[in-house]
Amino acid sequence: MTENAAPPLRTLKLVVEYDGTDFAGWQRQNGQRTVQGCLEEAFRAMTGQAIIVRGAGRTDAGVHAEGQVASVEVASHIPTLGFLRGINTYVPPEIAVLEVTDMPAGWSARHDARGKIYRYRVWNHPVRSPQLARQSWHVYDPLDVHAMREAAARLVGEHDFRSFRSSDCDRLNTVRIMRRFDVRRDGALLSLEVEGTAFLRNMVRILAGTLVAVGKGKMTPDHVASLLTNFDRTQAGVTAPACGLTLVRVIY
Amino acid sequence: MTENAAPPLRTLKLVVEYDGTDFAGWQRQNGQRTVQGCLEEAFRAMTGQAIIVRGAGRTDAGVHAEGQVASVEVASHIPTLGFLRGINTYVPPEIAVLEVTDMPAGWSARHDARGKIYRYRVWNHPVRSPQLARQSWHVYDPLDVHAMREAAARLVGEHDFRSFRSSDCDRLNTVRIMRRFDVRRDGALLSLEVEGTAFLRNMVRILAGTLVAVGKGKMTPDHVASLLTNFDRTQAGVTAPACGLTLVRVIY
Repeated sequence: MTENAAPPLRTLKLVVEYDGTDFAGWQRQNGQRTVQGCLEEAFRAMTGQAIIVRGAGRTDAGVHAEGQVASVEVASHIPTLGFLRGINTYVPPEIAVLEVTDMPAGWSARHDARGKIYRYRVWNHPVRSPQLARQSWHVYDPLDVHAMREAAARLVGEHDFRSFRSSDCDRLNTVRIMRRFDVRRDGALLSLEVEGTAFLRNMVRILAGTLVAVGKGKMTPDHVASLLTNFDRTQAGVTAPACGLTLVRVIY
Repeated sequence: MTENAAPPLRTLKLVVEYDGTDFAGWQRQNGQRTVQGCLEEAFRAMTGQAIIVRGAGRTDAGVHAEGQVASVEVASHIPTLGFLRGINTYVPPEIAVLEVTDMPAGWSARHDARGKIYRYRVWNHPVRSPQLARQSWHVYDPLDVHAMREAAARLVGEHDFRSFRSSDCDRLNTVRIMRRFDVRRDGALLSLEVEGTAFLRNMVRILAGTLVAVGKGKMTPDHVASLLTNFDRTQAGVTAPACGLTLVRVIY
């Protein structure tokens, strides 16, 4: 390869971690600090090209990621390790690119995704946790983890989840497959971990709000299960705060 | 007890957690946001009295605590649970009082302490960690944990630690007992946990800087051991950044 050879058009896969606290979400928006915007700015600084960074999904303002995935098309000779180091020097400290990999042409972080894993954290203690405040929802009342597990188990499988989406979600097909919904307790910290093919808007946060209502005894597992056939968003739990949610991994 | 009875003089023990990132340390200082200052302000708001909150030790700016302990003398009928809830509503969200207990008169968080446990966290990975950035020191180069453990083991016991203190530490007696110095690795996260009777100024951060130098192969465990008899601060490691340090527990 000579210095003058036209740079090849490549498709890159990025794995990205971020603390979403101080971002207006993933998606680029004029005048807002977003994760996608910061990554695109970094690619522009490195390559001089206007490059679109396409995420596997959009995370809301305040939501975190340990393993968001994005695809990028770029005409460049820069080796993947050069991109890894370079992009990390251009993005703010709350973002880190963990991996950069060359993929076959046409590979898409979004369309080739076969599933996602999300974790929702609840700090269940009479006193708040300063160390976990940015990454958890503080719930004072003691939660019945056994009841929460029973409700979670009733939701696993292929179901119409339209009762568990925000009112501005306009997807026509609301059937999704939930492969796993685990409720773990480690001291005062509860982790609700869910794996599925895809999720509706705010679905994981509404599932978390619903399970917390069950944990408080305000809702029964039977009631939660009934929402899979009697569709009524108002009968599910509240939308839990964004800060508790983390996109853990995208599965390919 | 009648409403009019003179409030009894009580000694309270507080266990306090904080994220030290945005504080100028524990100790009250005019015009600075400090943990002691915030707690004293909260007691004043609750009781109308000017109350001194005496910590078991002072943590530096940026250092965190999971179990700082403080003693407070207060003339009040307020039950301990009332103090716990009340103080937590007056202090900023980065501080939480975890426990309030009545103690015998004269009990002192500082003088009755028999030991302390500190943890120093190192994020040892080529790429920084957005989620752990506030609570760890990012070290790029791969660290040899076995060599670090060997050096740590050489420091355990009763020794003169004057090579491991900041130049402005003016203690005459520099002999301390280190009961335990563990080096654990969990993926890219290293935890250096040290338990001792008491520590000199910046001692834990200098110990962390020294162990990291050993992990990089810049210093041998033999060299580290030699600093316990050949006193020379300049031959120990750098003072590791404050953000990696947490006061885990005070032992009574």
